Amino acid sequence: VSWLETELREQPAALARFLETQGGRARELGALFRRDDVKYLLIASRGSSSNAARYAQYLLGRANRAPVAFATPSLYTIYEQPPRLEGALVIGISQSGGSPDVRAVIEEAARQGRPTLALTNDPSSPLAQASEFVLPLEAGEEKAVAATKTYLNSVAAVALLFAAATQDASAMVELGEMPELVAEQLKRSFHDARALDAYVGANGGTVVARGVNYGTAFEIALKIRELSGLVMEAYSAADLLHGPIAAIGEGWPVVVVAPTGPPRAGLDETIDALRERGARLIVVADDDRFLRRADTPLKLVRPIPEWLSPLTAVIPGQVAAMRLAELRGADLDNPHGLSKVTLTR
Amino acid sequence: VSWLETELREQPAALARFLETQGGRARELGALFRRDDVKYLLIASRGSSSNAARYAQYLLGRANRAPVAFATPSLYTIYEQPPRLEGALVIGISQSGGSPDVRAVIEEAARQGRPTLALTNDPSSPLAQASEFVLPLEAGEEKAVAATKTYLNSVAAVALLFAAATQDASAMVELGEMPELVAEQLKRSFHDARALDAYVGANGGTVVARGVNYGTAFEIALKIRELSGLVMEAYSAADLLHGPIAAIGEGWPVVVVAPTGPPRAGLDETIDALRERGARLIVVADDDRFLRRADTPLKLVRPIPEWLSPLTAVIPGQVAAMRLAELRGADLDNPHGLSKVTLTR
Repeated sequence: VSWLETELREQPAALARFLETQGGRARELGALFRRDDVKYLLIASRGSSSNAARYAQYLLGRANRAPVAFATPSLYTIYEQPPRLEGALVIGISQSGGSPDVRAVIEEAARQGRPTLALTNDPSSPLAQASEFVLPLEAGEEKAVAATKTYLNSVAAVALLFAAATQDASAMVELGEMPELVAEQLKRSFHDARALDAYVGANGGTVVARGVNYGTAFEIALKIRELSGLVMEAYSAADLLHGPIAAIGEGWPVVVVAPTGPPRAGLDETIDALRERGARLIVVADDDRFLRRADTPLKLVRPIPEWLSPLTAVIPGQVAAMRLAELRGADLDNPHGLSKVTLTR
Repeated sequence: VSWLETELREQPAALARFLETQGGRARELGALFRRDDVKYLLIASRGSSSNAARYAQYLLGRANRAPVAFATPSLYTIYEQPPRLEGALVIGISQSGGSPDVRAVIEEAARQGRPTLALTNDPSSPLAQASEFVLPLEAGEEKAVAATKTYLNSVAAVALLFAAATQDASAMVELGEMPELVAEQLKRSFHDARALDAYVGANGGTVVARGVNYGTAFEIALKIRELSGLVMEAYSAADLLHGPIAAIGEGWPVVVVAPTGPPRAGLDETIDALRERGARLIVVADDDRFLRRADTPLKLVRPIPEWLSPLTAVIPGQVAAMRLAELRGADLDNPHGLSKVTLTR
């Protein structure tokens, strides 16, 4: 068995460990988000951590109604003209904690006296050392190049910070139920995985979502892309209609991520537009009526609170990525010449 | 002759008209960026306007060292939980001024008493009416579905606001020279266009840049995609290395946008990594030594100040998009079932 599959299956345990060990710490960190001098959040990240950041943009934006901006690391490194960060709470997300560009943003924020918080799986990493506060991801060592359990725990860290920032006890309870739901989802998704075999000859595909699952769409695309080498891309359903849909034609696979929640009505119209173009539709959803619109339905185990749906909705995508990569004969643990830690300035 | 080609060739005139008529107005608007209560900028946009917004993220970020955030319209519309915008100057960019989601962000900002500015080609549009301040793009009517002159003038509007915000007289002079340079570039790029014929059988491609031309990469990808229907995508050179490069293999076309400037050294390494994977390299650059690394060099007419390079660097991409679409028999003015004005919530 590959490290990838082992780690993928380990996710419920890694998630439970994170929630058990870091709940108290997150409660303390929640106060950071309520500080009067925090007007917005600035997040620095790369790779799958950027997909957790996309989740944060929706969730933490709704939590304290604080806008979330993404840092442009090259302003801090290549151009050496870092922005003034007055009003910002600055968060670095990096599973390895190693990338110099993410660290450069945190270091500049510290220099400017702003509060800094690192979400990282390595609490002794350079990123953690540069940050005033650290929330360890507690995923355990991840050996496969493609992130699975560290991604899930990054998303969980954002969810935990949301519950802590809003001091919402029922949110905390809902989050506590997720390890069991993730375990159920894994079982279901492994059961459904053969449905993907029909797509092994595809050249690529598109993943679409909106709102809190915007980041899920990017993570599913990245996972399939890294592991199978297919040209996968992700779009918000709204952005797709402003031009990029032009490249979607007969037979092109499109994954629509649509758990029950406010964005689903709009995604119904997206499906109409995609059908008209002859796209093959893979739908990730809990609602059976909605799933009937798919060529390939990928069922989510039950309706869960929408804000937590990214924790289960990514699972069918991870399993699909593994399945497609296996069918295509890729090395699951060392795909396509990638390395585990990528250092960019 | 198509409207697309007519409008593409009209760009130097449209740009000159914008600079002549709006220079004074922009000087007044510059003060907005220097207000004490403006800690960061928030931009709402869709489609090619989002690529002008990506330019703004680098340029306006460097101007007043103010971070630039992109709005998440669904928080304002679908979720009805708009963020608190204290500290923000809120900018809407929309060529038509018609999209309800962009307007929703501006309306909420006005409700919260924040300063709002619209960059739009239609000063009587709903977006313009909802905004406290308006900078008209003065591109003249655009009939082709794919934006060319309205995109260029959106970029020029950002550049003009940069010069006005920083009260930099030499920047204003440099910008004033751009219509002539854009005209030169058009001539050169039409001359070079046949080089693209080698790529007509491609399934898609990737466009890569970093820093101020990050938005240029996205606009070139979008233009080729809209017009030719090829699956084109864009990445920052740093993001590409964190996983997505896995899908780039033997023969895959990659456009590297690399005018002389601080990001170019890093792009040299990107080219090494792409070469190793057997990608076919199309390079947009002014430096002859650097162009020699390309399979297909697309020459930029002369080194210009880096901050203005997005105004010429996009031209080879626009011309390539037109050429590829012609070769593939697409309707240049009404490509692939797209419509000129897309209304999304």
